[in-house]
Amino acid sequence: MDNKNNKAITNQEVDFAAWYTDVVREAKLCEYSSVKGCLNYLPNGYAIWENIKSILDKKFKETGVENVYLPVLIPESLLQKEKDHIEGFAPEVALVTRGGGEDLEENLCIRPTSETLFCDIWQHMVKSYRDLPLIWNQWNSVFRWEKTTRPFLRSREFLWQEGHTLHATKEEAFERTKMMLQVYYDFVTKDLAIPIICGQKTESEKFAGAEATFTIESMMKDGKALQSGTSHFFGSGFPDAFGIKFTDAQNKLHSAYETSWGLSTRIIGALIMVHGDNSGLVLPPRIAPTQIMIIPIAQHKDGVLDTCSKVYKSLEDAHFRVKMDISDKTPGYKFSQQEVLGIPLRIEIGPKDIENKQVAITRRDNHEKIFVKMENLLDNVKEILDSMQQEMYDRALKHLNENIYPATTIEEMLEIDKKNKGFIKAMWCGDAECEQKIKEKTNGYGSRCIPFEQEQISDKCVCCGKKAKHMVLWGKSY
Amino acid sequence: MDNKNNKAITNQEVDFAAWYTDVVREAKLCEYSSVKGCLNYLPNGYAIWENIKSILDKKFKETGVENVYLPVLIPESLLQKEKDHIEGFAPEVALVTRGGGEDLEENLCIRPTSETLFCDIWQHMVKSYRDLPLIWNQWNSVFRWEKTTRPFLRSREFLWQEGHTLHATKEEAFERTKMMLQVYYDFVTKDLAIPIICGQKTESEKFAGAEATFTIESMMKDGKALQSGTSHFFGSGFPDAFGIKFTDAQNKLHSAYETSWGLSTRIIGALIMVHGDNSGLVLPPRIAPTQIMIIPIAQHKDGVLDTCSKVYKSLEDAHFRVKMDISDKTPGYKFSQQEVLGIPLRIEIGPKDIENKQVAITRRDNHEKIFVKMENLLDNVKEILDSMQQEMYDRALKHLNENIYPATTIEEMLEIDKKNKGFIKAMWCGDAECEQKIKEKTNGYGSRCIPFEQEQISDKCVCCGKKAKHMVLWGKSY
Repeated sequence: MDNKNNKAITNQEVDFAAWYTDVVREAKLCEYSSVKGCLNYLPNGYAIWENIKSILDKKFKETGVENVYLPVLIPESLLQKEKDHIEGFAPEVALVTRGGGEDLEENLCIRPTSETLFCDIWQHMVKSYRDLPLIWNQWNSVFRWEKTTRPFLRSREFLWQEGHTLHATKEEAFERTKMMLQVYYDFVTKDLAIPIICGQKTESEKFAGAEATFTIESMMKDGKALQSGTSHFFGSGFPDAFGIKFTDAQNKLHSAYETSWGLSTRIIGALIMVHGDNSGLVLPPRIAPTQIMIIPIAQHKDGVLDTCSKVYKSLEDAHFRVKMDISDKTPGYKFSQQEVLGIPLRIEIGPKDIENKQVAITRRDNHEKIFVKMENLLDNVKEILDSMQQEMYDRALKHLNENIYPATTIEEMLEIDKKNKGFIKAMWCGDAECEQKIKEKTNGYGSRCIPFEQEQISDKCVCCGKKAKHMVLWGKSY
Repeated sequence: MDNKNNKAITNQEVDFAAWYTDVVREAKLCEYSSVKGCLNYLPNGYAIWENIKSILDKKFKETGVENVYLPVLIPESLLQKEKDHIEGFAPEVALVTRGGGEDLEENLCIRPTSETLFCDIWQHMVKSYRDLPLIWNQWNSVFRWEKTTRPFLRSREFLWQEGHTLHATKEEAFERTKMMLQVYYDFVTKDLAIPIICGQKTESEKFAGAEATFTIESMMKDGKALQSGTSHFFGSGFPDAFGIKFTDAQNKLHSAYETSWGLSTRIIGALIMVHGDNSGLVLPPRIAPTQIMIIPIAQHKDGVLDTCSKVYKSLEDAHFRVKMDISDKTPGYKFSQQEVLGIPLRIEIGPKDIENKQVAITRRDNHEKIFVKMENLLDNVKEILDSMQQEMYDRALKHLNENIYPATTIEEMLEIDKKNKGFIKAMWCGDAECEQKIKEKTNGYGSRCIPFEQEQISDKCVCCGKKAKHMVLWGKSY
C-alpha cells in the first residue's frame, strides 16, 4: 500500500503478529483489562459484534430458534455429570468459593459452556414427545482459565452464542447439527466475505462429550487456520447422563438426542486477519458498523458543509450506515482514521466536486477512486458496496485456494512448510497416534478437519503408509 | 373476569403474591435454576427482554450512546477504590478464589455493578478535553448475593443495562443524568404503558458512591412501589478516586464528572403486576413479542386454514408480530394459552366469518370482541392495537392517581394503611432519622422519592413536626 497513512502499524510482511496487535490497538477494537486475560470490548470492536449478533440472530430465528438466558454459575456437581465433559473443562474453570461473606457448601464454576445447565432444565421439562424439539440459544459470555491469550483469538472471558437443541430422533438431531453448520457457512461466506472449508473434526479434536463435531475452517493472510464456528452432535450421551427421557404416543420411554453449536468473538480475529492490510482494518460492507465516511475538502469554503450534509442525509435516508467527519482535523488525518477503522467507502466532497455535481468515492479494499455524479449517488453507492463485498470474498477465496498443497509423505509436508504458508491436504489412516506424530514431525501441522469434499491424494496414510481412510486438511492454527 | 380459562392461576384479590408466582409459571417466563437464587430466563420471558433491549438500545443510540462489554470479574482491590461503593456492595459479592486449578493471589468478584471497571479503563484513556465526553453502555448480567429472591424482582443474577458516562463539566454530566431519566420515562410510559412518578432519592436511599440518584417509580396493582430505573450523578468522586484528570485547551488539569444509569429485568415484574389480570399476563402491544394470535374455528372445514394463512401472511407483511395456532388442540385450550401469555389480540376465523368476509378480534385487556371486515383488516388492527396501548396506560394512570393519599401526621398514615393500598404523600424535614422512624412506625412506608412535582401538603414534617423541606412519596415496595 503506497498511500499508507498510519505509521503506527507494523507491515504484515515484516511481522504478522505485531501487525495484528497494532491494528487491534490503533482501531481501538479491544484492550486487555486489569483482570488478567480478560478483554475490554471497546465501542469500535463491540459494534462489529453487535452487527454479527443481529444478522446471525435473525438467521437463527428463521430456523425456529428461541433465545434464553441461563445462569453464569454452574454447581461443581452439575458440571461433573458427563464424564468426558468434565475431563475437558475441569482444568480451565474459575471457582466461586465464597458468597455473601461466607464459604459456600458447594463451589460454583463460572460457566465454561452451558450443556449441563440446559440438560438440567430439560430433565424437569421434558416428559412427552409433545415437549420436543427444543431449539434454544443464548448470547452470553463464557470463562476458561487460558494460560496464554491474544485479543479476540483467545481470552479467559469471551462472548459467543451457544445453541442447544433436544430432539426425539437421532436423524432430526443430526439434521439440526448440519443445518446450523450451514447457517454459519452462509453467514461467514456471504456477510463476512470469508471463504470456508467445512468438515468434521477427528476424534482427538472433537468437543468434550460430543459424538461428532463439525467445523467451518478459514485461512488467515499468514496461511494459518482459524476454527470459525462448530456444530456438535451429542447423541444421547448428555441427555442420558441427566436422565432425560420422553414417552412416545404409545407411552413408551425413549432417550432424547442433543446438539450444540457456537460462534464466538474469535470471528472478529478472522475478519481482521483475512481482510486487513497495512493501513488497518478492511471491513466487508455487510458487517461494517459504518459503511461510508464523508470527508469535506476545504470545508470552510462556501457550500461544502452544506453539500456534505445533504449527501449525508440522502444516504442515511436510503439506510446506508454513514458518518461525516466535520471536525477541525486535516483531511489527511481523517483519511487515516477511516482507513484504520476499515470503513468500506470514503466520500470526499470539495468545491470542485460541487462545481462538477459529483463526489469522489474511494474504496477501502483496493484504494480505487471513482467519481460519481450526484444524481446517481444512491444507485452507484449500492453497486460499489455490492462489488466490494463480492470482490473481497473472491480475493480471499483465491488466497485460500492458492495456499492449499497436496502431500503424500511427511517429507513433502516438511518441504511445503519450508517454502510456503498455508494448508496441506494429505491422507490419513484414522489412527490418533499418526495424527499426533504428524503434528510433531511437521512443526505443528495439526488436523483441522476431514473436509466434506474429499479427494484421493493417494491411497496411503501420509505418516504410517497404511491404507488411508480420509483426506485430512492439516494446518498451523490460531 | 368471567371468561377466565386457566384455573391454575390464583385470583389477584385472593392472594396477589401467589397470583404473581402462578402467572410467571403458567406463562413460562422464568424459573429457578439449580443455582440457588439464580433464574433461568425461558423463551417467553427472554423474548420480552429482547424487545425491551431493542427499543431502549435504539433510544440510547439516538442520544449518542456507544455500547461496550467489560469483564465479568473485578479484582477485589479495584472494587475497594471508592469507599462508599465498597461499603455498599462488599456484603453481596460472590468471590472467585481459585482458577485453572490454583488458588489466586488476589480474589476476583463477580461484578455487582461496573463503575470501577469503567473508571479503570478511563484512567488510561482520558488525557485531554478532546477525549471527552465518553457515553458508554453495556447490556450484561450482574451478581449480588441476595438472601431472599423472587422471579424478576430480586435474584442473585439479573440482566440489565448499565450506562456510564464521563464529562468535562459538572453541568454536562448533570444534564446527561437527567436526559437518561427522561429516556427511561419515555420508554416506560409509552412502550410499557406504565405510568411513572419521577423524583430524587433521599440521601439514605441513593446509590453507593453517588452524589444524587434520580428514579422512576411505578405502582403495582396491589399498591406497592417498584423502582423501575435509576440515573445517578456521581460528581467527581469516582473519577478522583481513580486519578482521572484531563487537561483543557490551556493545558490546565481538571477533574472529570461521571454518571451511571440502569434498567433491569425487574421491569418485567412491573409489566406483570401493572397490567396482568386473573387470566394471566396482559402485554402492551408495543412490547409484546407476539401481538396477534390467529386461531381457526372448525379448522377442518373447507377454506378455514387457507383463509387463516392468508390473513397471517397479510399481517406479517404489514410488520405485525403474528402467530397462528393450527395445532389439533381445542379452541378453548388455545384461547387459554393466548390469554396466559398476554398476547394483545386474538383473531378467530371460522366458516361463518369467511361467509361474512370478516374476522372476530378479541382484545386481551378488556375482552372486547370486534368484528372487522377483511378489506379493512390492516387499518383496523393498527387502530385497535394503538387504542389498546393508550387505554392500558390510561387505566394504569387512573389506578396510580386514585391510590395516592395525602397525610400530615403518622396517625393519618396509619389510618390510610389500614383502609387503603397505595402511596402516601407527606412532608419531610430532611432528617434521615425521621425517614427511618416513619418506615418503622407505619408498617413499612419507606421513602420512594422526592417527586419533581412538589405539593405543599403542610409546612411541617409528618414525623417530628419541624419545618418541612420536601414532599416525599412514601410506599411499601418490592
